[in-house]
Amino acid sequence: MRAAIYNGPHAIEVGERPDPAITAPTDAVVRVTLSCVCGSDLWYWRGESPHAPGPIGHEFIGIVEEVGADVRSVGKGDFVIAPFVYCDGTCPHCQAGVTSQCMHGGSFGNRGIDGGQGEAVRVPLANGTLVRVPGSGHSDATLRSLLALSDVMCTGHHAAVSAGVKKGSVVAVVGDGAVGLSAVLAAHRLGAQRIIALSRNPVRQAVAQEFGATDILAERGDAAISAVLEMTAGVGVDAALECVGTGQSMATALGIARPGSVVGVVGAPHSVDNPIDTVVFRNIGLRGGVAPARAYIPELLDDVLEGRINPGRVFDFETDLAHVVDAYEAMDERRAIKSLIRVAA
Amino acid sequence: MRAAIYNGPHAIEVGERPDPAITAPTDAVVRVTLSCVCGSDLWYWRGESPHAPGPIGHEFIGIVEEVGADVRSVGKGDFVIAPFVYCDGTCPHCQAGVTSQCMHGGSFGNRGIDGGQGEAVRVPLANGTLVRVPGSGHSDATLRSLLALSDVMCTGHHAAVSAGVKKGSVVAVVGDGAVGLSAVLAAHRLGAQRIIALSRNPVRQAVAQEFGATDILAERGDAAISAVLEMTAGVGVDAALECVGTGQSMATALGIARPGSVVGVVGAPHSVDNPIDTVVFRNIGLRGGVAPARAYIPELLDDVLEGRINPGRVFDFETDLAHVVDAYEAMDERRAIKSLIRVAA
Repeated sequence: MRAAIYNGPHAIEVGERPDPAITAPTDAVVRVTLSCVCGSDLWYWRGESPHAPGPIGHEFIGIVEEVGADVRSVGKGDFVIAPFVYCDGTCPHCQAGVTSQCMHGGSFGNRGIDGGQGEAVRVPLANGTLVRVPGSGHSDATLRSLLALSDVMCTGHHAAVSAGVKKGSVVAVVGDGAVGLSAVLAAHRLGAQRIIALSRNPVRQAVAQEFGATDILAERGDAAISAVLEMTAGVGVDAALECVGTGQSMATALGIARPGSVVGVVGAPHSVDNPIDTVVFRNIGLRGGVAPARAYIPELLDDVLEGRINPGRVFDFETDLAHVVDAYEAMDERRAIKSLIRVAA
Repeated sequence: MRAAIYNGPHAIEVGERPDPAITAPTDAVVRVTLSCVCGSDLWYWRGESPHAPGPIGHEFIGIVEEVGADVRSVGKGDFVIAPFVYCDGTCPHCQAGVTSQCMHGGSFGNRGIDGGQGEAVRVPLANGTLVRVPGSGHSDATLRSLLALSDVMCTGHHAAVSAGVKKGSVVAVVGDGAVGLSAVLAAHRLGAQRIIALSRNPVRQAVAQEFGATDILAERGDAAISAVLEMTAGVGVDAALECVGTGQSMATALGIARPGSVVGVVGAPHSVDNPIDTVVFRNIGLRGGVAPARAYIPELLDDVLEGRINPGRVFDFETDLAHVVDAYEAMDERRAIKSLIRVAA
């Protein structure tokens, strides 16, 4: 089969990989229809995080082609969403809803596991991992939103849930990437009454507003902190959602969070200062991490299928597998919020 | 009046200070009956945290001697508990229950405010700060427990509440100082089904068991992490309570917390490594900080007065104001868990 292969920074090519086959009775093979590029893939592309040579990508939807003898939850021909971490669904962490820390799980596109940016994927622990999508003949817009559930929408949702966003919350979202925009949508869905989106990019500002942002703030750093404090009568926001992972974005989130609140942290940290003094002396909590997408997909899926949310709106660039490098470059150069890869018709 | 005066590391003396007087209509003057030494006072004593020369101490109970014209919540002759941070009770942070971050509040024994280790204290913002204790003729044991509500018991409770301890939780408490022991009591009170207390000191182990610890663990560092993981079938605890503030204690708490849980952090941090990678990649939250004692006292007070909890059990050394240095030395040399200072008969 054809698949994207990571050879190093700025060196991804589409090449041949062995066709996936069932190797354990709990496996399924999924023929990928749509895939995409994650912000975390960009760290690898840029050489700012290490990635082993080999398959890459961890977000995909597709059709089940074959299942192992023990797979009961899905069958051949089913249309499925794969969360970006596979999981057994039965270990104590999965049972507690933290499927992203499954004791027997792992990531796609890593450690010998096929990547999502390819024609097919062997999915380990298919019973616990794959989510069957009911119905058929879904519109392209719906398919794009279903793809968003494999990671980015669940990650934005995780930021909001971790920060305790609820009806009436005043929220600020730091980061206008696809995760940040998804966090805006998630906060809106959870009933936030005010959502301040930090963005200076008109295209992203527009999506933020479509997703429910009530205020757009172009300031950054200390100026952003001052502005948010002014907007909240000096109090700070009930929930700051940190969706970038840089030192500055974390400092901003900690600076605008009201005492007693929890910052929802989902950006992979790069050069983030030690926040412990803020945690203790300003009473600001931190919670988030790797989103338990598998646990979140069912409730979000209902909302997608019934048209209440359209997280696929973050895809504003599209190409096919042969041009996967274009997908990376469009995001790297910030021409795209998030790139979709149409693998099969 | 007589009061303890901090002159520098290992240099505290009892000297003369001006008698407190009402300077604002929201003030009260409280004649101190019992005071005590906090673990944070020890950092000053040892010179490991800075403290301005002058009055010291922030935990006390006593009798209201005089009130300003605007004070309505307490009156002359009332027996009161002072939380260690004074607060107005009306600002947005107080209204949200985070009285320790009151916009107009501050600490006793700091910035010109009388310390608790003295004969009398001018209490600013008395309406929001002081809690009247009903009844009279309380036993000495009850009085000691009421004193514990000024800080240490509320701080232990804050660790447990911040970590989300609830009925059935599996909890581990890192730290066998007075705060850690109070955290054991708080976790027990909140219904934890298993409470692992990390301690290698027989006196403290005994108090931990009286307070509800089900397991005592003498290991430290990596050995403690291995032991707790073994005790929990590799899962980790539902709630790790960090009650020390050193790099090792924090590493232990983070190492034994199960993914998805929140570490309750109340130790003042000293040389703590940056925990952000653990927060993100292991899905372990951090929450806690300066306990909002004023918000917690009412519910804990009921339990003390009705004999359901006896947090005063942490006081195992006692002296009078003239011998306040002995109180510090007993704790510094770990001869005492916590030192009580009997200021008035």
